[in-house]
Amino acid sequence: MADGLALPIAEIAVWLGEGKLKARDLVEAAIANHERLGGKLMAYSQWAPEHARQCAAAADAAFAAGSQAGPLQGIPTSIKDLFAVSGFPTYAGSPKRLPPKFERDGPVIATLRRQLATVMGKTHMVEFAFGGTGHNAHYGTPYNPWDAKSHRSPGGSSSGAGVSLCEGSALLAFGSDTAASVRLPAAMTGNAGLKITKDRWPTEGIVPLSFSFDTPGILARSMADAAFSFAALDPFLGDSFAFLRGVPEGIGGIRIGIADSWFWQDCENGIAEIVRAAIERLGHAGAVMKEKALPEAREAYAVFSEGGVSAIELLAFLDRELPDWLKTIDPVNAPALKNAEALSAREYLSRRLRLVAAATTAAAHFDDVDVIATPTVMVTPHVLGDETSAEQFWARNRKIVHNLVPVNYLALCAATLPVGLDRLGMPVGLQLIAKGGDDERLVAIACAVERVLGAPREILGVPPMCQG
Amino acid sequence: MADGLALPIAEIAVWLGEGKLKARDLVEAAIANHERLGGKLMAYSQWAPEHARQCAAAADAAFAAGSQAGPLQGIPTSIKDLFAVSGFPTYAGSPKRLPPKFERDGPVIATLRRQLATVMGKTHMVEFAFGGTGHNAHYGTPYNPWDAKSHRSPGGSSSGAGVSLCEGSALLAFGSDTAASVRLPAAMTGNAGLKITKDRWPTEGIVPLSFSFDTPGILARSMADAAFSFAALDPFLGDSFAFLRGVPEGIGGIRIGIADSWFWQDCENGIAEIVRAAIERLGHAGAVMKEKALPEAREAYAVFSEGGVSAIELLAFLDRELPDWLKTIDPVNAPALKNAEALSAREYLSRRLRLVAAATTAAAHFDDVDVIATPTVMVTPHVLGDETSAEQFWARNRKIVHNLVPVNYLALCAATLPVGLDRLGMPVGLQLIAKGGDDERLVAIACAVERVLGAPREILGVPPMCQG
Repeated sequence: MADGLALPIAEIAVWLGEGKLKARDLVEAAIANHERLGGKLMAYSQWAPEHARQCAAAADAAFAAGSQAGPLQGIPTSIKDLFAVSGFPTYAGSPKRLPPKFERDGPVIATLRRQLATVMGKTHMVEFAFGGTGHNAHYGTPYNPWDAKSHRSPGGSSSGAGVSLCEGSALLAFGSDTAASVRLPAAMTGNAGLKITKDRWPTEGIVPLSFSFDTPGILARSMADAAFSFAALDPFLGDSFAFLRGVPEGIGGIRIGIADSWFWQDCENGIAEIVRAAIERLGHAGAVMKEKALPEAREAYAVFSEGGVSAIELLAFLDRELPDWLKTIDPVNAPALKNAEALSAREYLSRRLRLVAAATTAAAHFDDVDVIATPTVMVTPHVLGDETSAEQFWARNRKIVHNLVPVNYLALCAATLPVGLDRLGMPVGLQLIAKGGDDERLVAIACAVERVLGAPREILGVPPMCQG
Repeated sequence: MADGLALPIAEIAVWLGEGKLKARDLVEAAIANHERLGGKLMAYSQWAPEHARQCAAAADAAFAAGSQAGPLQGIPTSIKDLFAVSGFPTYAGSPKRLPPKFERDGPVIATLRRQLATVMGKTHMVEFAFGGTGHNAHYGTPYNPWDAKSHRSPGGSSSGAGVSLCEGSALLAFGSDTAASVRLPAAMTGNAGLKITKDRWPTEGIVPLSFSFDTPGILARSMADAAFSFAALDPFLGDSFAFLRGVPEGIGGIRIGIADSWFWQDCENGIAEIVRAAIERLGHAGAVMKEKALPEAREAYAVFSEGGVSAIELLAFLDRELPDWLKTIDPVNAPALKNAEALSAREYLSRRLRLVAAATTAAAHFDDVDVIATPTVMVTPHVLGDETSAEQFWARNRKIVHNLVPVNYLALCAATLPVGLDRLGMPVGLQLIAKGGDDERLVAIACAVERVLGAPREILGVPPMCQG
């Protein structure tokens, strides 16, 4: 069953459980894919085939003994190097290995490993997750596999996460989302991404960027795979899969708000048209559609544009825990950290309180819709190297996180799923935003939406760099 | 049954439930006590006898109909004016009434009122709860009833809370504890006080001082009364009273750590001897005693002495919500708020991270003791008016919160109960500190300790200002 990797994770799990598929076959297929594409795509900072084989052997041994350690047993998985994974060094995109305390599994990774998932390695990322373009001056940037000619951004800060899925070396990829960093690389590489409500999953064992907004998250090749993984990992679901069994086949009666013009105004290369067409199909399939403004997004974005809270919170963390790492910080990030030194506590707290106030009123917009739909990103993934100064970098960053950071700053949750290719052939994402705490409903609705629109592989085809 | 007020709340509740005691008799006795003593003691900023009579009538009507709305039905209660209580203005110790949004019951007060407690009025406090001496330039300071000759501090910031209990106009008093403000006035007025773990009870509906550390809390005439009220109010106890029924009669096997010298070194007027004698009695009664250092308290106190986080967090709140109130801020507090304007975000976050780190290691000290015992306050309540400059005020403040603020800053919980009178005849408190989240066990142990040592009224007698 060499083609096992092509199946949805839920089916793979069944086949593994029934002994019709072996974890070792999966891992060898994943390794073969990496050997074919890894040199071009650069998804991994630490590629670990021998470790992965050991994981797969353990999964198979457990299956053989009749032990099912969890739904993700034997599933090839990549992990952003922001996460501590025992047995692996942690660099967090920096040039120097972090101290041992940053190498101990936190609760999320402990849950993954307890289930005997197959850990393939650690993926590249923006240094300390601070930025969305994928740029990393120390290691370079993974390649977006949807453009075989130009080196386009794969999104960040989890820049290797989506690429590892395209490559076929992982079926599940861990990222983190402080302002965009799961949804952005997911959308830019044609994958599904899930940013759960802050504090639903613990951040222990994840190098912090902004303690106020850091959220672990997952990327997968489809929303169905993301939903399966969410169900496997989420600590609040009593019966992990009951809620998925409850997902209706159709989308009838689901109330979808169409975001106001602020979320659409800078769409380029046909992105607006593709997302609107997808939304219209949902309406035709029975969803209840209405226009729905989320004016608090402007306030959230204003706080971000004024400097946000990540730079100062990262600076305070590095001051305390990793002062030596400040010296080698990526040149595009150094000015932002330098500026943060001058930020007053009064202004910092003013930003925090503005966001608390905006989040409070934003929640009320979800009284009469289940989700609000937006384009995930309004622009095509840019060609790296075209923008090299710190100013250009941050202008680009503001542009690509525009529709994403309000979700974090307003204490909401959101999913993204691929809905087409833009005029340059790059993936386009549909973002579904839900009220904070409504993660289960969000995931169920996003699955229902995917069933209406079709699986990403059917919609998008195969990335040019991965063909042949 | 005019003397109903003298009983423990648990017995009063039984008598009320059986119809042998009426809420109206309790409220009339409470009103009579206030009429006798209120002019001297100045506990209340808003004394509301007619409202209290309406509450009592409602409680009696419910009892007559066989309805028990909750354990606190008909119990006379005073509320610090930091809490919104619908139907009452909120001043939070400031000279101007706050906007209507600060007058809507939060969850804690909603729980109290749903139980048909008798609300007697709102008690005086330090302006915006910022300071522990009880000083308030706008309204003056309530009198500590234990000194009939000098106007001594009743503790703060919940300065009227303990006094209302001494007066006999309330059996339960609500306060808030950000650095000391429940335990300090409780100890200084010879009452019991409970500072629960941060975030166990919601702070919604309470004017914020420091969102990082604000905690609602309760004062009562005895730990037994405080425990009854805790059980009635706490949202995490399934069966409110099961845990109290489980409190052992004796204290055999309870592991009590005796705090290190840092908590004792500045004790004056026989306070150390009284607290040590109480602790020895616990040892003789079967508690397992050991010396137990809590070195993180020094780090917590260092952060407090360097400026802490309350001033800047209060400033940011006032900036946003009540900018006009800054103009009239109490002159002893104005310099601290002015200084906070110059605080950098980097330094502010450094303080926060230092406290997080200290709290993490502090928790481990409770692996082999249930509680750590300290004097609640090392000094005798001071004579007001002796210290008038802002510098003297803050020097005094640092002295009186010394043993208290580490509990807040290290994410612990604590109770205080009276154990004697010092050489000047002022009450002395024993503080029991427990690990964060161990609130139920803390309350149970504090009750067991009180049973060994005796009820406060037996130990202390009647405050001189309340005699006759």
